[in-house]
Amino acid sequence: MSALNANLIGVPGGRAKLQTPALVVDLDVMERNIAAMSAHAKAQGISLRPHAKTHKCAEIARRQIAVGALGVCCAKLGEAEALAEAGIESLLLTSPVVTEAGIARLMALNAKARELIVAVDNPDIATRLAAAAEASGRKLNVLADLDPGMSRTGIAPDDRAIALVEKMAKSPSLIWRGLQCYAGQAQHTENRKDRSEQSLAVLKKVADVRDALAAKGLNAEIISGGGTGTFDIDPDAHVLNELQVGSYIFMDKQYNEVWEKDGERPAFETSLFVQMTVISANREGLATTDAGFKSFATDAGTPALASGAPEGASYFYFGDEQGGIVYPSTNAKLVPGDLLSARVPHCDPTVNLYDVIHAVRGDVLEAIWPIEARGKSA
Amino acid sequence: MSALNANLIGVPGGRAKLQTPALVVDLDVMERNIAAMSAHAKAQGISLRPHAKTHKCAEIARRQIAVGALGVCCAKLGEAEALAEAGIESLLLTSPVVTEAGIARLMALNAKARELIVAVDNPDIATRLAAAAEASGRKLNVLADLDPGMSRTGIAPDDRAIALVEKMAKSPSLIWRGLQCYAGQAQHTENRKDRSEQSLAVLKKVADVRDALAAKGLNAEIISGGGTGTFDIDPDAHVLNELQVGSYIFMDKQYNEVWEKDGERPAFETSLFVQMTVISANREGLATTDAGFKSFATDAGTPALASGAPEGASYFYFGDEQGGIVYPSTNAKLVPGDLLSARVPHCDPTVNLYDVIHAVRGDVLEAIWPIEARGKSA
Repeated sequence: MSALNANLIGVPGGRAKLQTPALVVDLDVMERNIAAMSAHAKAQGISLRPHAKTHKCAEIARRQIAVGALGVCCAKLGEAEALAEAGIESLLLTSPVVTEAGIARLMALNAKARELIVAVDNPDIATRLAAAAEASGRKLNVLADLDPGMSRTGIAPDDRAIALVEKMAKSPSLIWRGLQCYAGQAQHTENRKDRSEQSLAVLKKVADVRDALAAKGLNAEIISGGGTGTFDIDPDAHVLNELQVGSYIFMDKQYNEVWEKDGERPAFETSLFVQMTVISANREGLATTDAGFKSFATDAGTPALASGAPEGASYFYFGDEQGGIVYPSTNAKLVPGDLLSARVPHCDPTVNLYDVIHAVRGDVLEAIWPIEARGKSA
Repeated sequence: MSALNANLIGVPGGRAKLQTPALVVDLDVMERNIAAMSAHAKAQGISLRPHAKTHKCAEIARRQIAVGALGVCCAKLGEAEALAEAGIESLLLTSPVVTEAGIARLMALNAKARELIVAVDNPDIATRLAAAAEASGRKLNVLADLDPGMSRTGIAPDDRAIALVEKMAKSPSLIWRGLQCYAGQAQHTENRKDRSEQSLAVLKKVADVRDALAAKGLNAEIISGGGTGTFDIDPDAHVLNELQVGSYIFMDKQYNEVWEKDGERPAFETSLFVQMTVISANREGLATTDAGFKSFATDAGTPALASGAPEGASYFYFGDEQGGIVYPSTNAKLVPGDLLSARVPHCDPTVNLYDVIHAVRGDVLEAIWPIEARGKSA
């Protein structure tokens, strides 16, 4: 089954023959996005540690690392395990690992990875990690995760953070590397000034923690955070020394709107699409495609039609397996077999629905990449 | 990676040690649901051809067939291929197959399956299927799919349907088996009387087509349709002779509400849960779990907490990887490592996020079943 569409690799016009729904990345565009972010980071003197939760794909991680990324971030232990298995050697796990079995898996991964760093936001967990690392015989790299104010993860950026760092820095089996703070709340703020103020207010608190630690002789080597929405705002604050940007490689409807609603051109181009096929069209001005709730994550609205649709058409979810295309019935009629593509509402959870990415250049399917960490949420 | 949690099978208390997020089915409950639907069908003299788009799992299909189901329905060709590969011998493909490559795959599946039936809603596609079946050397079983009024798939239940059936019945390489009509729009109508009226109005049109065909000597052997929402409404109309029920095995928040909002007890019990773990809890009255947009399909709202949460707690989506649990801070505090479970908003697309189902009985993990057709949307 995994060989579906493999016969089309390299065939002229192969893109138009994909069995669908298919997740498609336009290589020319993605390569421009990767190069642009790399150039930006170099110009700003900031490092990149892109977040692999967006793509979950070792081939894309390799391409990011090839142009200078330090390694990649992972949101889940299973994601890190899958990417390590596929050869990615430097991994920052941005979420806490808290269960006994999870900590055992973390130690097994630490024994294999060239570099594994994990975010910690709780002193009791730090104690348990230190004990496990000591028992494992290999020290564990840790960052203190600071709460940016939304309290999803992170310890309060005050005395509590200082105490956590002091504890970890003292532990003989932990290597305290620095701080993490991801201001998730700022990334999708649609006014640039507001977005900037939100992010910089958070970074100010991170700087305070950094300075208080430095006064105690604890110098953070790594200060990691940021995202696609603030990639060109955060470097100016000179607090973060690496960016955890993820969505810039693909861009989705939601991230495009961050710029578009503010009247700006999005900083990166859309490279990710779902390609779908009309399977039924028995009523005027309406066609049904083969992509519904199981082919798009729905948390950020509906897909935006990108190609193949009549003028004035729009997509609506038509159940688990199907999408509806409604269009002025005076326009060219869609018929079964017609191909359409759409920008996805939200890239990360949409990518997580697919086993493979179809990498296309123009009309040619150049490769099919496994999404090694798909579904590895545990 | 696929061995995650396999060490817990049969271990007392193993359910509470699952690495999460984990999709969990309570076997006692699912078995009662399967038995209840089977008893209902026998009492009503109607057959069952349950829809596998809900579970995508060969083991569950086998259990449905073991208590009398004729086979299973599949929504997609890839789903049918995966279940056939796993040993399911009788498959009804309920959506049209329209592309050249899709028709070739359909013929390959037809060559292998004991019984494959496919729904057709377009005379041009019927012509192409007939040609492909003739070239393949094996006849293809077909149903005419009738539009229940929502025009997602199906041909209008009038002269157009009659003409389509006549065409297919005449074809030497097709075997016309009957009609399909799925009134999707009626399944979630929350007032029983309205639901009943909607479904019976559709079935009346199906009966008219059936009778018009019979007058021409074309007797439908199969008339397939219905769903969990109308399972106890449709048999009274004596039009359908088989039900394509799906969600009854699991039940989800959305289907429970079909009955609950009407003041009735749901006809089946909830057997499906997502189990999750608290990973961070640094603010009073708030905890963060490891299950977000990548662990629940979000098209039908938020999960309903089922176990492990303090009194008065509720779940909110806290991004791609995390869920928030908000609760009165006067109640017992959640700490990292605490386990919670939730009913899912919508079972079908949530199941499609997971590679395996953890089958539990009480506190014991009895088995881990692969979801063979997960992601097989093409």
